[in-house]
Amino acid sequence: MALEIERKFLVDEKLFRQPEKGIRVKQGYLQGDGTMLVRVRRQDDKAFLTLKGKTTGITRAEFEYPIPVDDAEKLFEFCRRPLIDKTRYLIPAEDGVHTWEVDKFFGENEGLMIAEVELKSEDEAFSRPEWLGREVSGDPHYYNSNLAEHPFSEWKDEI
Amino acid sequence: MALEIERKFLVDEKLFRQPEKGIRVKQGYLQGDGTMLVRVRRQDDKAFLTLKGKTTGITRAEFEYPIPVDDAEKLFEFCRRPLIDKTRYLIPAEDGVHTWEVDKFFGENEGLMIAEVELKSEDEAFSRPEWLGREVSGDPHYYNSNLAEHPFSEWKDEI
Repeated sequence: MALEIERKFLVDEKLFRQPEKGIRVKQGYLQGDGTMLVRVRRQDDKAFLTLKGKTTGITRAEFEYPIPVDDAEKLFEFCRRPLIDKTRYLIPAEDGVHTWEVDKFFGENEGLMIAEVELKSEDEAFSRPEWLGREVSGDPHYYNSNLAEHPFSEWKDEI
Repeated sequence: MALEIERKFLVDEKLFRQPEKGIRVKQGYLQGDGTMLVRVRRQDDKAFLTLKGKTTGITRAEFEYPIPVDDAEKLFEFCRRPLIDKTRYLIPAEDGVHTWEVDKFFGENEGLMIAEVELKSEDEAFSRPEWLGREVSGDPHYYNSNLAEHPFSEWKDEI
């Protein structure tokens, strides 16, 4: 088990210089009541099953296991719709310590771009790139699990 | 992924000769809406995470992955109560082909004993030992996932 501490921000697409290479990620969530999220993720020729405990602040328990890609594809059939389809870019932070994971969403979440940074403690400092927008760490709208139920295209007008 | 086909019976404890050695099994279920069950199981020094699709007749899709024992213990904290505590006995069937898995339950399911046989097809023949009782394959009461929510001790009078 790992404890995941991360902060999440919107990205100003005009200022963000998109790297050539990204990782295409497909992921889905098995339905549950939210005590523990069960995520199926495929990245190219790798796949993972991840269990995530309820979020406490910006920290959550996470259990991740590699699974066969074929299993992931079959498990997607059991996941709620829409599946999450995004390209992930890894951007080394200027502080030389952290790495930004920038996700550009497609499909029903097209238009959304989110940057995440993983921290070792909740109050750890990190450098902020110029393309970093509003922080959305605590906002459930931006949880990938919620984007798989209420995608961006459906709530554009609410925010 | 495997397709699991199994038939399940009550056991006549008076006729059943309990082997000396059994496998103590502790298992729990992460809450979910039933589309897919997520089971955590520990057997001695081994542990598994298992996803089971909705039952169709006596067949269901099953995905099983070994996980660290420490993870299993932590995941039990997220499982609904009571956890399933049972000893499993493996009894070779007289037909020389099948193996009976006989589970003797403890805790809130004390008094219950269930035998299961795994088959390759739904109509496959198998030999029936003398201690085999009533078939309960289709009865949701006897699903381990339901015994973890409505244990035997609570429904003795209903059956």
